[in-house]
Amino acid sequence: MEGAEGTGGADGTGGAEGTEGAEGMEGAEGTEGTEGAEGTGGAERPEGAERHSPGLQPWVEGASQKSSSPCKGDTTIRGTLRAQSLGMTLSICYLANSQQPTANSHIPMPWFPTLSEIESAAERIAPWAHRTPVMTSSAIDAIAGCTLFFKCENFQKVGAFKFRGASNAVLSLTPEEAACGVATHSSGNHAQALALAAKLRGIPAHIVMPSNAPTIKKAAVAGYGAHIVECEPTLEARETTLDEVVRRTGAAFVHPYNDQRVIAGQATAARELIADIPDLDILMTPVGGGGLLSGSAMSAHYLAPATVVIAAEPAGADDAQRSFRAGYIIPSEHPNTIADGLLTSLGDRTFTIIREHVHDIVTVPDDAIIRAMRLVWERMKIIIEPSAAVPLAAILEHRIESDGKRAGIILSGGNLDLDRLPWMP
Amino acid sequence: MEGAEGTGGADGTGGAEGTEGAEGMEGAEGTEGTEGAEGTGGAERPEGAERHSPGLQPWVEGASQKSSSPCKGDTTIRGTLRAQSLGMTLSICYLANSQQPTANSHIPMPWFPTLSEIESAAERIAPWAHRTPVMTSSAIDAIAGCTLFFKCENFQKVGAFKFRGASNAVLSLTPEEAACGVATHSSGNHAQALALAAKLRGIPAHIVMPSNAPTIKKAAVAGYGAHIVECEPTLEARETTLDEVVRRTGAAFVHPYNDQRVIAGQATAARELIADIPDLDILMTPVGGGGLLSGSAMSAHYLAPATVVIAAEPAGADDAQRSFRAGYIIPSEHPNTIADGLLTSLGDRTFTIIREHVHDIVTVPDDAIIRAMRLVWERMKIIIEPSAAVPLAAILEHRIESDGKRAGIILSGGNLDLDRLPWMP
Repeated sequence: MEGAEGTGGADGTGGAEGTEGAEGMEGAEGTEGTEGAEGTGGAERPEGAERHSPGLQPWVEGASQKSSSPCKGDTTIRGTLRAQSLGMTLSICYLANSQQPTANSHIPMPWFPTLSEIESAAERIAPWAHRTPVMTSSAIDAIAGCTLFFKCENFQKVGAFKFRGASNAVLSLTPEEAACGVATHSSGNHAQALALAAKLRGIPAHIVMPSNAPTIKKAAVAGYGAHIVECEPTLEARETTLDEVVRRTGAAFVHPYNDQRVIAGQATAARELIADIPDLDILMTPVGGGGLLSGSAMSAHYLAPATVVIAAEPAGADDAQRSFRAGYIIPSEHPNTIADGLLTSLGDRTFTIIREHVHDIVTVPDDAIIRAMRLVWERMKIIIEPSAAVPLAAILEHRIESDGKRAGIILSGGNLDLDRLPWMP
Repeated sequence: MEGAEGTGGADGTGGAEGTEGAEGMEGAEGTEGTEGAEGTGGAERPEGAERHSPGLQPWVEGASQKSSSPCKGDTTIRGTLRAQSLGMTLSICYLANSQQPTANSHIPMPWFPTLSEIESAAERIAPWAHRTPVMTSSAIDAIAGCTLFFKCENFQKVGAFKFRGASNAVLSLTPEEAACGVATHSSGNHAQALALAAKLRGIPAHIVMPSNAPTIKKAAVAGYGAHIVECEPTLEARETTLDEVVRRTGAAFVHPYNDQRVIAGQATAARELIADIPDLDILMTPVGGGGLLSGSAMSAHYLAPATVVIAAEPAGADDAQRSFRAGYIIPSEHPNTIADGLLTSLGDRTFTIIREHVHDIVTVPDDAIIRAMRLVWERMKIIIEPSAAVPLAAILEHRIESDGKRAGIILSGGNLDLDRLPWMP
């Protein structure tokens, strides 16, 4: 059926854009209270840090720039950064080494998913993932002063876009790799997404979760048949535990965002939105670790090059904006926001794409996020989690120039604790 | 696109039923906290009660059966019933008169909307109303043990199916009639629906609301540009005030449910659902005044005659079930339920259809309604009001035989107070 063009004026005259034929869509199957930080301090296990010596980055960070080999035994940097994130350790190794490549060194070129990789991901996950609908609301358009198209990833399997990347990763494994299963550390949507994807392929999933993770989150992951491995609630324990699991099981590690298969998978949401609404002026996503943002930016780059890609971030977790402006990754420190899916730091892979293909990152305070979330609940009758409301909050707060424009927003997910809504005292 | 067949097993393997092409749908534009009783004690103004003397009803109520002319001056019955509802007064006049028709009497034959009337209503409202999507949830299917298709009228304009009937009524008016506007009494979804429909046609709407109606409900109606006429919170004041408004303005009264144009309009929701999912074993709606139920039953009668139509009702407001079993209308007395859209009594027009074309009416307690509502919020990520959850509650409570069957449920609306969710203490 035709695109969601039924956007009328303030009077609610949005036309009936439906036509004959079913608009059936499968519900989200999300579980309650399952949003949450994932990969904060998350690790992409170095495949051998010494292999990373690109020496061609203009965005080298001050002090560590001088280190000739920060990844080999530069324990000061490594130790400091490990306190933030193993992913960050790898990033800085990558960024900090200003040596020219040598014959011995592996050179990880900055990686950008090709259109073909995105198309392959879309094809790969099609039997598993929902093609989510695009919704509009003339009432919200009237308030926002622009025409908004909401890509409803809250209706995606497990209630969040994360299922796209996780299923693409799981489906990319060879039969031999798959036989050993997959592993990750996450207490958020990625954990459930990977658990479900593994279940669908019939392989084991090992999810490292801190022992103090809420029971409801453990239950959600266990409900998908995953093997939960508890660890002490420290970054070191998480890393050690994941390493141990991988060593013991041979499972393939699937990072929540800093993973090529995951980024290509997340890109499929924007690909669908662009296919449905090809003439967007603006495409917006929230940004945490940057998987959704970087994938969306690549889809726009290939499929809607005139579309401006802008990310929105909670003011209380503004590391992505600061990184974007600084030109190097600044880890997330003591993030404080209701949008608990956006606590993570960028990864080197996501940052490389973001700085090249994202036009801006803006921030909004929590009260604006809560208002935007409630507006969507009230007017659109759909449940979104706080993280998903951040882009709309940015528009309503006039943090971007959207007047009269056509803006697509990826509503990233709909998992939250229904007993504690953020507008309640 | 094809029907919503992506209903998998408990493992969440529901296929990706989406295909290329936009599944855009316009949001509900509902407002908060706007569900509520409408037409409890509501009146369909008799067009002249003495005209009603059908004399051919087998479901005559005991005592009044003996009355030779209950509508003319039988003040005992009339007085008693007026305490319930003016609509009821008319009903009993209709039902109680066992006289044979005379040459002088007008004989209102039991009215059933024709297929042509339903099709005309669908065509008439198409430019205004949304064709709402049908959603499925393999997770809920697994819990329910059957395959469910949810027709999302919570995404309808004003957040409820009521817009269908109201807009059909408004669009059925001649230009001369329309010039005087429309009037009703309601503090619920019908009030907003009629207000918006009148606004879209550019005619006045006069909504009689009790002076103690919540401010938020008045604001919602006023937000659509309607003229609110306050009255004392008594049934008599409501009736008198409506009469006065109609006399003063010449506005056309549009009853919330006991109106042919309204019933034909409500029938269009089931018509769409059947077009999308033609092979339903069961079709379920909630029942309050019976507008949605009677319209749905007629659509099923014409378009899916093998489909069994079953209504669900709160145990705390079980007048429709008791009426259905007794064979005559038993007014709703002291209803007590969280499903505040279902407090009303049946009307004569809706009851005539229901007793002929509905297979059963079952009841469920409030705690089951709340559980079902929460399940939809959690798993489907959509907001429905308590009234909309009643049919699913009946399935989950095994009040009907649904094992392994394909059941369509009309989710009637999504308006409720987001500050006071029913599962919160």
